[in-house]
Amino acid sequence: MLAALGPDIVTLAQEADGRRFADWSGIPSGDVLALIRPRSTEELSQAMAICHAAGQPVTVQGGLTGLAGGASALDGEIAVSLERMKAIEEVDAVSATMTVQAGCVLQSVQEAALAAGYFFPLDLGARGSCTIGGVLATNAGGNRVIKYGMTRDLVLGVEAVLADGRVISGLHKMLKNNSGYDLKNLLIGSEGTLGIITRVVLRLRPRPLGVSTAWCGLDDFKAVTTLLRRAQSELAGGVSAFEVMWPSYYDYVLGNFPELRRPLAGSHGFYVLLETDGADPEAQGEQFEAFLARMFEEEVLEDAAVAMSERAALDFWAVRDAPGEFPRLIPNMIAFDISFAVSDLAEAASRITQGLEARHPGSLALVYGHLGDGNIHLIADVPGATAETVEAVEAFVYGVVSDLGGSVSAEHGIGLKKRKVLSRTRTPDELATMSAIKQALDPRGILGRGRILG
Amino acid sequence: MLAALGPDIVTLAQEADGRRFADWSGIPSGDVLALIRPRSTEELSQAMAICHAAGQPVTVQGGLTGLAGGASALDGEIAVSLERMKAIEEVDAVSATMTVQAGCVLQSVQEAALAAGYFFPLDLGARGSCTIGGVLATNAGGNRVIKYGMTRDLVLGVEAVLADGRVISGLHKMLKNNSGYDLKNLLIGSEGTLGIITRVVLRLRPRPLGVSTAWCGLDDFKAVTTLLRRAQSELAGGVSAFEVMWPSYYDYVLGNFPELRRPLAGSHGFYVLLETDGADPEAQGEQFEAFLARMFEEEVLEDAAVAMSERAALDFWAVRDAPGEFPRLIPNMIAFDISFAVSDLAEAASRITQGLEARHPGSLALVYGHLGDGNIHLIADVPGATAETVEAVEAFVYGVVSDLGGSVSAEHGIGLKKRKVLSRTRTPDELATMSAIKQALDPRGILGRGRILG
Repeated sequence: MLAALGPDIVTLAQEADGRRFADWSGIPSGDVLALIRPRSTEELSQAMAICHAAGQPVTVQGGLTGLAGGASALDGEIAVSLERMKAIEEVDAVSATMTVQAGCVLQSVQEAALAAGYFFPLDLGARGSCTIGGVLATNAGGNRVIKYGMTRDLVLGVEAVLADGRVISGLHKMLKNNSGYDLKNLLIGSEGTLGIITRVVLRLRPRPLGVSTAWCGLDDFKAVTTLLRRAQSELAGGVSAFEVMWPSYYDYVLGNFPELRRPLAGSHGFYVLLETDGADPEAQGEQFEAFLARMFEEEVLEDAAVAMSERAALDFWAVRDAPGEFPRLIPNMIAFDISFAVSDLAEAASRITQGLEARHPGSLALVYGHLGDGNIHLIADVPGATAETVEAVEAFVYGVVSDLGGSVSAEHGIGLKKRKVLSRTRTPDELATMSAIKQALDPRGILGRGRILG
Repeated sequence: MLAALGPDIVTLAQEADGRRFADWSGIPSGDVLALIRPRSTEELSQAMAICHAAGQPVTVQGGLTGLAGGASALDGEIAVSLERMKAIEEVDAVSATMTVQAGCVLQSVQEAALAAGYFFPLDLGARGSCTIGGVLATNAGGNRVIKYGMTRDLVLGVEAVLADGRVISGLHKMLKNNSGYDLKNLLIGSEGTLGIITRVVLRLRPRPLGVSTAWCGLDDFKAVTTLLRRAQSELAGGVSAFEVMWPSYYDYVLGNFPELRRPLAGSHGFYVLLETDGADPEAQGEQFEAFLARMFEEEVLEDAAVAMSERAALDFWAVRDAPGEFPRLIPNMIAFDISFAVSDLAEAASRITQGLEARHPGSLALVYGHLGDGNIHLIADVPGATAETVEAVEAFVYGVVSDLGGSVSAEHGIGLKKRKVLSRTRTPDELATMSAIKQALDPRGILGRGRILG
């Protein structure tokens, strides 16, 4: 079978010296059979037809920055990488679209959009290594979801190779296309289990001409949701970021990262990093400050600082982006990426933090997240935790998620890591329906075996 | 079987006196077996389990305003109406969501959103009769897609009953939820062939505090796309409508509707109805006029008129909305709802109109549409046309669509009416994949038989 795949696209694993086959989830790779690196959709299609005929399991790999283990290759699997398919094929300035191959790195897309006078708003810490195929497979989120949506909302067309080598050719540039079932959104977020995305038409947005940023201190959660609603209604460009930090997070970060500048002098019940972007920097800046003054007068805000320079805005963001360094400081951290209705978020966070303190006195529980999207990240650390402790913490947190009708994965996906807790979020009938779709599209079950529906 | 369904939810067709079972497509209804009107998801679930066991075909009906025949009931089918499930169950002002039953009429949703200080942007001519279930089933569009998206973009959660009575319970309020396959978007736009949507969580948007409207005259298509791009980039609130009319449309409408006010004195190569909405009416109005002045100086615009009152804006919209009366004036009109990449629109329209004139001299071809979405509507009228002529016109127009990689249905759906031309837009592999999904979710093929994949 390997010979049939063709020596110019297949590399035996033992020859791919030192290559990493695991993602950032901590789930190690197994004994990989081979690596396929097609140069075109046709080559991949032929390779998949061969794997399908042989019942050969295949795992798709992008930039390997995923956190759920969807891309960590397992024993006996063939890894597929689209690193030879990374061209930006077209920027259509009239239609405001960009057509790219799936192996293209996100940062290259962002830069090409700016060069064409446009903006591709999706942004993640992994921008320099994650690929477009990977961000579609996981429906990646990031900090600008509140204004621009998830990856799904930035994609107009998708071409993909199915498990048996057939090609879904949906490289359309239309915003409106009601012609049959939505295969595009089915493929997006399927984490490589329904098809391998090969080419994509992205939707470009107007380049914001100015950004206004403020760091806000508020007394309680009601004030936070009031600020969100008023900002969305009263800021002309809308809200492009609304990042909320609980005091536990804020105090921990400022206490442990001495290089960070303290955005506000005093202590508050909640902290919000608020950003708006828009078309008229001067008018927008004035309007932004007038809005904050109004919120202060109406006692929604206790305090706020406006970034007067790009440098100052970056300093605010550094406080929010500190979790990138958490693995170094908290090597045994237990991380959660969960979502709720916005109206349930305060309840969810307090149930979780109080429950953890009651169960594991002295444990750390840091909460922060994208409030407007209902998405919080929780970092827990229990001193001296065993594998059983970790399991108990996860069971407790996902129990709260389940009770409040939340999601066990807001933006990271399910992969191998969360497949056991998927039933906390989806009903048996939903899971059975997903399995029926998987069976219909990949009857031999060779694509991303055990991921999501393991 | 009918007895098992229960006398309190089933009505024999002969007893449903005078009730209409056909939609606005012109496709008549057949000999309907019965009408089911469940009062709850559970009642519908039980009824569908019975129909599934009996292999009984079922058609879902909403407000019956569809244009593709998806809801026209056929011989031997049972019609399902959710008219007893039209409650607005909850408005969650903190999460900015509304939970409604599928039988709720669109206009009721719009009004409830305004009453709660929010805005539900989806708007169609049929707002007073179309139901939320219907707009989801067809992924309805309308005039505000350019800023707010299609129906799909306004829905956070969906509950639906599958063909065999199982219930998909996805009534989530989260913007972010990456937990398995996207069943929500698969159900939306499936025109009642994959499941019956019973309850929905809608996403509410901030209520715009001011709207600015202008009627613009431009020389050529390049100016039109320049205006679109510049407006999207330079108007703070973004573009909420960008409706383009070709001169054939403009001249026909002003010539045949004497009650309409002429927006501009002169004649132009293209006409655009431009609208922006936003948070600060005064600043926005000034900015809007400054933008138009700039476009005039830079010779993008030949002429423009700004609506100085709501009345004046309605007068502009009346010129755009005249097609509502076309069926009276042009009884044998052949209507198309097609989409293209924005960059292909001018080419598409000119190929079609010139081709029609060459093939059928003296025929009428009116072109107008939602340019920012790539969606144009074409109204053709060939004097003395026979059924063969209509078929030839359709074959020609859909041939152009196919050549340019467009879609045979931008917003109206496929239903019964366009199933024969679906292959002009989707490849055999895509159609086979859709059929596999249909088979997986409705193995006995009882839901919306012959629709889409007929």
